[in-house]
Amino acid sequence: MRVIILGGDGYLGWPTAMHLSAAGHTVAIVDNQSRRTRVGEAGGDSVTPISSIHDRVDAWREVSGHTIDLHLFDVCDYDELATLVAHLEPNAIVHYGQIPSAPYSMIDRRHAVTTQVNNVVGNLNVIFAIREHAPDCHLVKLGTMGEYGTPDIDIEEGFITIEHRGRSDRLPFPKLPGSWYHASKVHDSHNIHLASRIYGLRATDLNQGVVYGVHTEHTALHERLLTRFDYDEQFGTALNRFCAQAVVGHPLTLYGRGTQRRGFLNIRDTMRCVELAIEHPAAPGEFRVFNQLTEVFSVRELAEEVQRAGAHIGVSVEIQEFQNPRVEQAEHYYEPVHTKLPALGLDPTLLSDELVESMLSTLQRYSHRISDRPIRPQIKWR
Amino acid sequence: MRVIILGGDGYLGWPTAMHLSAAGHTVAIVDNQSRRTRVGEAGGDSVTPISSIHDRVDAWREVSGHTIDLHLFDVCDYDELATLVAHLEPNAIVHYGQIPSAPYSMIDRRHAVTTQVNNVVGNLNVIFAIREHAPDCHLVKLGTMGEYGTPDIDIEEGFITIEHRGRSDRLPFPKLPGSWYHASKVHDSHNIHLASRIYGLRATDLNQGVVYGVHTEHTALHERLLTRFDYDEQFGTALNRFCAQAVVGHPLTLYGRGTQRRGFLNIRDTMRCVELAIEHPAAPGEFRVFNQLTEVFSVRELAEEVQRAGAHIGVSVEIQEFQNPRVEQAEHYYEPVHTKLPALGLDPTLLSDELVESMLSTLQRYSHRISDRPIRPQIKWR
Repeated sequence: MRVIILGGDGYLGWPTAMHLSAAGHTVAIVDNQSRRTRVGEAGGDSVTPISSIHDRVDAWREVSGHTIDLHLFDVCDYDELATLVAHLEPNAIVHYGQIPSAPYSMIDRRHAVTTQVNNVVGNLNVIFAIREHAPDCHLVKLGTMGEYGTPDIDIEEGFITIEHRGRSDRLPFPKLPGSWYHASKVHDSHNIHLASRIYGLRATDLNQGVVYGVHTEHTALHERLLTRFDYDEQFGTALNRFCAQAVVGHPLTLYGRGTQRRGFLNIRDTMRCVELAIEHPAAPGEFRVFNQLTEVFSVRELAEEVQRAGAHIGVSVEIQEFQNPRVEQAEHYYEPVHTKLPALGLDPTLLSDELVESMLSTLQRYSHRISDRPIRPQIKWR
Repeated sequence: MRVIILGGDGYLGWPTAMHLSAAGHTVAIVDNQSRRTRVGEAGGDSVTPISSIHDRVDAWREVSGHTIDLHLFDVCDYDELATLVAHLEPNAIVHYGQIPSAPYSMIDRRHAVTTQVNNVVGNLNVIFAIREHAPDCHLVKLGTMGEYGTPDIDIEEGFITIEHRGRSDRLPFPKLPGSWYHASKVHDSHNIHLASRIYGLRATDLNQGVVYGVHTEHTALHERLLTRFDYDEQFGTALNRFCAQAVVGHPLTLYGRGTQRRGFLNIRDTMRCVELAIEHPAAPGEFRVFNQLTEVFSVRELAEEVQRAGAHIGVSVEIQEFQNPRVEQAEHYYEPVHTKLPALGLDPTLLSDELVESMLSTLQRYSHRISDRPIRPQIKWR
């Protein structure tokens, strides 16, 4: 298949590009490299010493013999995007090309507006580029489990049948986003659903949990193929941040008591989920939602896991409770359904002591690249 | 109370400004006059010969002795908005200042993006201006019943208690917007709900039905106080368009068989609803939703009402079915709950033959201002 990966230079985008390329697909990536810039602005840097986007593609060709086509532009630039889609006529577009940080969006009004305009306009551009130039193309959009928030009922996959006053309908699952970033993804979901109904768009919304992990099958092949690994407050995600903190002896920054529960998955499973979505496309006019997570943990459980794994390899890990900078429920029900991807063939890589030990060992190699500066939480929701 | 009306030059904004001013509130209006420009671009013009925004304010002072404070800027300009909010410290902001047209948003990608960016950014600006400069201010936001679409269950007012697998939660009512414009209002609703949870914003979302009518108590006082009345495909609404078509002998443009059912209300009731919302403000952190409609009709019922009223005053009215340019269900269940505003004191002005006759008679005075050009539906959803 011909596949365009928007945001193909990112933490997930780059390994997805290699994964799909290795699987025999013709892959083009689009990126404006804004993730590199924004992490730098946050005072951070990838723990892993990633290559330039050009060098990555060269290295992949040398290592695998496969070519990944590279396009450096912003998805918000419709002319560039439309021209590329018209030229390549992709079978699928995987859309990771967005600002992906809740704390970034909460800094101030400017960051809230930047996040929502960037994400909503880019996503509308993708919808219209498909509609105008490749109407049979399947949009695989990265959403987030954070769109649902933490309702007091089981979270179904995108839609729920509601019985009400003697009648019944299957309707979009209600959304309770907890940041301007998460809200931008809710906006995207409504826009994509609308496009499926009025333009017949084929669409899969992958409501992804928090991804962790350093390596995929292909990033491990050569140091020039590494994917980024962020540990700063804005772009680092829970378990990854804890692992980076552990290897430099920084206490793990638990927000509140750490009783918040969320869905998680290994980066290797993200690769597989996207591949499964592409290989089993949505029907024309179908908007389907997959809850893309494999396990649910409390944040404290993750911290304790890192502490335990650290002890096995001689790294002493302290856990410290910080006043929660976010507005979120401490104690809450959390039961997300996630059966659609396993039904397509996902065989999850579950979290284990060995896995975290391996993450810690890999990160130890690069611990000189981790600074205290961007670790401490400074962005407050209120 | 000190009240800012965003979009105070519009069909509803201007009479609301007079209504609240007459009720003793201190009123400032903000407008960038984009409605006047956009209706002109659509080939239309207000059937009523409206004064300039400056002359309106002068006329109101002459007629009523009350002053309305006038500010000409775009709500998307945050510096202007923040400065005004900091200066006036309003008790309430009534937010009509948005692009209000579904067909306009469906013209092409550019109009979709313009509508969503304008509406979402303007609304975020309002949220942040309140948060930073008047945190106790009550946001009264004009939403639309079109956010809900036409689900197969009763439409509750903003929230619904869902029983699911033995548990229960009160969650936002699922949204099925039918155009990029309606989706922009869904985005606003999610953003305002979030702001109520994280910033303690007081907010009322008025999910309004389709408004009809030429006159309010105050527009009828003097011709210089008239509010606009649009009849073009883009900015005219169902019953108003039919009345304008009737007085120039144009067949009423029924979309499909006209069996679509929607909620409606008289423009006089809009005045009263906004006043009731302001006088009974939401609590800090409360996001409440009122379904602001008084009656449900099929579009065909409205056309037949115009035909009947026309006959009474000697105007012969033909009804013509056009291929529906929109993507919407022809036959559907539609049962929106609307009890919260009556509970606060709304005493509706219901549709009647006399009322439509009066609309037709008023419009006959201005029928020379109605052109065939912008009547015929040209913007297609697909």
